[in-house]
Amino acid sequence: MPKISDRAIEMPASPIRKLAPLATAAKERGVHVYHLNIGQPDLPSPGVALEALAHIDRKVLEYSPSQGFRSYREKLTKYYEGYNIHLDADDIIVTAGGSEAVLFAFLSCLNPGDEIIVPEPAYANYMAFAISAGAKIRTIATTIEEGFSLPKVEKFEELINERTRAILICNPNNPTGYLYTRREMMQIRDLVKRYDLYLFSDEVYREFIYTGSPYISACHLEGIEDNVVLIDSVSKRYSECGIRIGALITKNKTVREAVMKFCQARLSPPLIGQLVAEASLDATEDYAREVYDEYVERRKCLIDGLNRIPGCYSPIPMGAFYTVAKLPVDDAERFCAWCLTDFSYEGATVMMAPAAGFYTTPGAGRDQVRIAYVLKKEDLRQALVVLRKALEAYNSRANK
Amino acid sequence: MPKISDRAIEMPASPIRKLAPLATAAKERGVHVYHLNIGQPDLPSPGVALEALAHIDRKVLEYSPSQGFRSYREKLTKYYEGYNIHLDADDIIVTAGGSEAVLFAFLSCLNPGDEIIVPEPAYANYMAFAISAGAKIRTIATTIEEGFSLPKVEKFEELINERTRAILICNPNNPTGYLYTRREMMQIRDLVKRYDLYLFSDEVYREFIYTGSPYISACHLEGIEDNVVLIDSVSKRYSECGIRIGALITKNKTVREAVMKFCQARLSPPLIGQLVAEASLDATEDYAREVYDEYVERRKCLIDGLNRIPGCYSPIPMGAFYTVAKLPVDDAERFCAWCLTDFSYEGATVMMAPAAGFYTTPGAGRDQVRIAYVLKKEDLRQALVVLRKALEAYNSRANK
Repeated sequence: MPKISDRAIEMPASPIRKLAPLATAAKERGVHVYHLNIGQPDLPSPGVALEALAHIDRKVLEYSPSQGFRSYREKLTKYYEGYNIHLDADDIIVTAGGSEAVLFAFLSCLNPGDEIIVPEPAYANYMAFAISAGAKIRTIATTIEEGFSLPKVEKFEELINERTRAILICNPNNPTGYLYTRREMMQIRDLVKRYDLYLFSDEVYREFIYTGSPYISACHLEGIEDNVVLIDSVSKRYSECGIRIGALITKNKTVREAVMKFCQARLSPPLIGQLVAEASLDATEDYAREVYDEYVERRKCLIDGLNRIPGCYSPIPMGAFYTVAKLPVDDAERFCAWCLTDFSYEGATVMMAPAAGFYTTPGAGRDQVRIAYVLKKEDLRQALVVLRKALEAYNSRANK
Repeated sequence: MPKISDRAIEMPASPIRKLAPLATAAKERGVHVYHLNIGQPDLPSPGVALEALAHIDRKVLEYSPSQGFRSYREKLTKYYEGYNIHLDADDIIVTAGGSEAVLFAFLSCLNPGDEIIVPEPAYANYMAFAISAGAKIRTIATTIEEGFSLPKVEKFEELINERTRAILICNPNNPTGYLYTRREMMQIRDLVKRYDLYLFSDEVYREFIYTGSPYISACHLEGIEDNVVLIDSVSKRYSECGIRIGALITKNKTVREAVMKFCQARLSPPLIGQLVAEASLDATEDYAREVYDEYVERRKCLIDGLNRIPGCYSPIPMGAFYTVAKLPVDDAERFCAWCLTDFSYEGATVMMAPAAGFYTTPGAGRDQVRIAYVLKKEDLRQALVVLRKALEAYNSRANK
């Protein structure tokens, strides 16, 4: 029997995946599981999008252009104008979710062995795409104690060597909810310029910023236009994770031409998803406001609730719909599993993502979890009660 | 400005892509272009699929499971039973088109530097996916003179070395329409077994076999069940290229677990496409028969017509909806370009794919083109008239 590849062996299994069968088993025992672990918004997709989906008038579900429909890309430029990001339709390449955009950015810009600097904790799948491309992720630590703010320039420079080719940020951040400040973005800009690096900037959560501080896109940074590759997706902003429509955006024509070769090889992005995404751009301001207001309330409900639990601590996330919280346990992964296998309160338990999976530094984040607030407030409140009871029970076990 | 990756530079630009702007220019001059170059069926998608699309009753267009919906995979097993391929739903991983299945097969099974033997002419994008995975394609020549039949075992063995990890076939074949015989499939089986290779078998055209000879799937071969990775797609069989739904199928659990890591990283295959693909499995026999009968007639129309043109020769393709034909020109790429830039007959011209792009051997296929028969018969007939006139005009140019 032939062997599998080394990179397949190296690929990390998602920490959530390990818990998934435990959650299934809990449900089979009749326990209700509050899913604090997922990044799938529960809010409805825009009505205009569902309308468009119900009225697709095509007899042949044929290939769309490899770069994505021009009509969609032109309409996207107007959307970005609203964020003071000035694009031409040609700057935009439509991808199968943000995931494909990250993979194609890596394949197009990095050679095997090249290094990418990523602040950690970080979205775990960046690692998977780096392994796919043979690139190496070097993480720079941010800490819960400092609210996940970016370390000083010197810390970056310690990691930079002749193989360093890129900095990758997620802003607002998954998993921490952190929003990079203007000062931090200028610091990144200077590094990118000084060392002629790529800046891969994943900004799929820009709709979800809950602070007065401005959103500074990588596309706002002057003097590094040819270095910036923006990763985007409609998944989160329109609750459309399933349609697999993202985008890779860059002013760098050489990079675009390289990316297009990979796009042409996979023929086209999803046809129907594009039609839905294009229609979504007509979603009303009311839709956006309702979604936004809902997350604002959920955030307050969750973060206040967490910080009221003895021994728990969560910084205030400024964006996205996650937080990384510290729990009064030694090993959050074990605690998360225990919640699913050995605990329930009034017939319910909680599922959370152990934060260690978002760090590469051994031991980092061991007492932390990522909690998403994509549940209704009543459910969040009840989940917080369950979490408090679970921590009490866990820490008073006889055999702990 | 940072550099692009070496693999991006190495990625071949599709031969059709070079002609695309010429075709656009021809259309802008008012010339009608008969597209003999594309693999997008013009026939309608099944009515049941379009019905299902119009009645998707979901408020949140959410992630589907990374492996694909179980209901769809279970229904697929019944479809495969019809071809005497016995699968469990767990053997099937739903992918974003056959393209993603090829890429994930390579990423999961091959290390950088590993070699895959592929009979040429071959689907050009295999090369792109190999480059993405750092693997190397070694081609084994098949010739139009021998009707693209497979060379003897010795020719394969000449290519096999310690880096050889796989054989890749497309059966029925794109671009040649060739269908591997039972004897040839047994020959491949023996090689795979003797050298413990993977057999990647792309069988997306199995619905389109026009000969009494049996379809021998890689999944029918005994004793190499753990070596076979089947690549599949609904694109061609249901005229659903745009929904991006394919499958990677293997009995090898270790390979499946490896592939699933790449699947989990990209989160999920397209949601709506899966719903459409699942509904398509209920397409009537009438639908399949009408599509089949149409291709049978088109094939006869095209191949007879081609072989009546002086100096043209096409073997009879036994499957798919392509043929590779020899033209009475030195350089088919130049001729194809000329058809678009310098020629029209009664206001029309033809666009064909130069076959050189399907070969890696320098000079091979230089006087050949790939012609797809995805046009209505009247259009095919008219395109053949135009092609004949074009060849006459091209070969009687003063400055030839």
